[in-house]
Amino acid sequence: MIIVRTVREMQMRADDWRREGKTIAFVPTMGFLHDGHISLMTEGRARADALVVSIFVNPTQFAPGEDLDKYPRDFEGDELKCRTAGADAIYYPSAGEMYPEGYQTYVNVQEVSRGLCGASRPTHFRGVATICTKLFNAIKPHVAIFGQKDYQQLLVIQHLVKDLDMDLQVIGMPTVREKDGLAMSSRNKYLNEGERKRAAAIYRSLKAARAAVEKGELNPRAIEGVIRGGLKEAEPCEIDYIEVRDADDLSPIEQIRRPAVAAVAVKIGATRLIDNILMAPLASHDR
Amino acid sequence: MIIVRTVREMQMRADDWRREGKTIAFVPTMGFLHDGHISLMTEGRARADALVVSIFVNPTQFAPGEDLDKYPRDFEGDELKCRTAGADAIYYPSAGEMYPEGYQTYVNVQEVSRGLCGASRPTHFRGVATICTKLFNAIKPHVAIFGQKDYQQLLVIQHLVKDLDMDLQVIGMPTVREKDGLAMSSRNKYLNEGERKRAAAIYRSLKAARAAVEKGELNPRAIEGVIRGGLKEAEPCEIDYIEVRDADDLSPIEQIRRPAVAAVAVKIGATRLIDNILMAPLASHDR
Repeated sequence: MIIVRTVREMQMRADDWRREGKTIAFVPTMGFLHDGHISLMTEGRARADALVVSIFVNPTQFAPGEDLDKYPRDFEGDELKCRTAGADAIYYPSAGEMYPEGYQTYVNVQEVSRGLCGASRPTHFRGVATICTKLFNAIKPHVAIFGQKDYQQLLVIQHLVKDLDMDLQVIGMPTVREKDGLAMSSRNKYLNEGERKRAAAIYRSLKAARAAVEKGELNPRAIEGVIRGGLKEAEPCEIDYIEVRDADDLSPIEQIRRPAVAAVAVKIGATRLIDNILMAPLASHDR
Repeated sequence: MIIVRTVREMQMRADDWRREGKTIAFVPTMGFLHDGHISLMTEGRARADALVVSIFVNPTQFAPGEDLDKYPRDFEGDELKCRTAGADAIYYPSAGEMYPEGYQTYVNVQEVSRGLCGASRPTHFRGVATICTKLFNAIKPHVAIFGQKDYQQLLVIQHLVKDLDMDLQVIGMPTVREKDGLAMSSRNKYLNEGERKRAAAIYRSLKAARAAVEKGELNPRAIEGVIRGGLKEAEPCEIDYIEVRDADDLSPIEQIRRPAVAAVAVKIGATRLIDNILMAPLASHDR
């Protein structure tokens, strides 16, 4: 496994693989890897000849006052996990390599970036779309693998790739969870013991929402109420949003007629956690 | 020479060439080709194994009320010129292929898009950066060739490619001119006989500006005055801008100490024409 620190070297490696007829799978990360990332790497390893994992805590997707500076890092631990998962390369550029002086170009995916996390983090998805464009141009993957935990991010990337005619496939993988249901996230490390216990209420509330839809409740506002009720078990907590939206384009909906996603962002203590669940109404002939 | 109408087919052709070890040169155009375009194609033909010319009148770089609908078109004439210049492919997608329903992604190069043409056409360079990103992703060129007549556009593309880590080289080629100095442009077709004659004053005024710099005038405002004086010969005309700026990043300057560009946009009749000239102060030991 090689560690690549510059755009130029990454492109040369990618060109070498492609010239040899090899396919490239890519897993973008901000490091501090957990089992969710491992599941993405395992998928990438199975889908292509070469597997590249990027580790880059991307400053342009953090706003001032967010946790850029304290975001957890553990390059040695990450290196071991990548090696064990069978990665061929870690792409590990510096912030100066990615954003040198005079940098001035940004990619905006408009509609799907609005609302949900885009409301409280207005430049977040611009940063995500920009860094992913840069990473795709350096790594030249045939397939890129993202987690469904960041559901809005996954849709932003799918729209980005489609709209800009990028020649790669985007795969979304199911969220990997702790035993009590909490979605794995590098940010879970910020939680103290009490907060960690209360955080399990997030996924319980989402499962209750899905159960209600499956029992026939098709009013998104009622489903949001179910989640709000379930999140009482996480108190004290601060709810950023609870929303039921169309699963394909995140447009607001008045009734659940097609697959929908229930997405939440909750601050427990100082830690902002997000999660989501997909849910589909029973086909009418099933009822 | 093949004519390619879809993103998917273009990418497959590009992959085929690259797999064979061939290099790809790309000349983007909006069609209605003239000798300026031919010079770009000749350069592309000399620099790579395969030459792709795109013909696409890009709606996102026109504002409402601009000349999108009346922009001149002549696909049969263009096809012959591309064939004669030795192109291997014309990439000729429809507007629906490039911007299908639900399209929502734009690329913004910030600083160099401001001022000059960006002032009177505020979304123009966003459209240019976006379409070039899409064309690069479909054609996968090793080298892309642009004309220096659209000087600000050339800098936007150079910044775009550098900032987003696109793995291709951007070449700017000298402006090709009519005998009386008028820069070749598909829009010259809009001019009636009297307008066409007056339009020659644009380049005369730019040459006078360069001569003044070479004689030692280093005040950008004085140089702009020289151009304004020269443009009296184009009257009646409407001056959009006359500006002397840094040649590398288009930043405003107070004195000409390094290479500068004098750029103008002038409306003669209903036709907006642009042109520019590079000029450098004599090195101090020359004086």
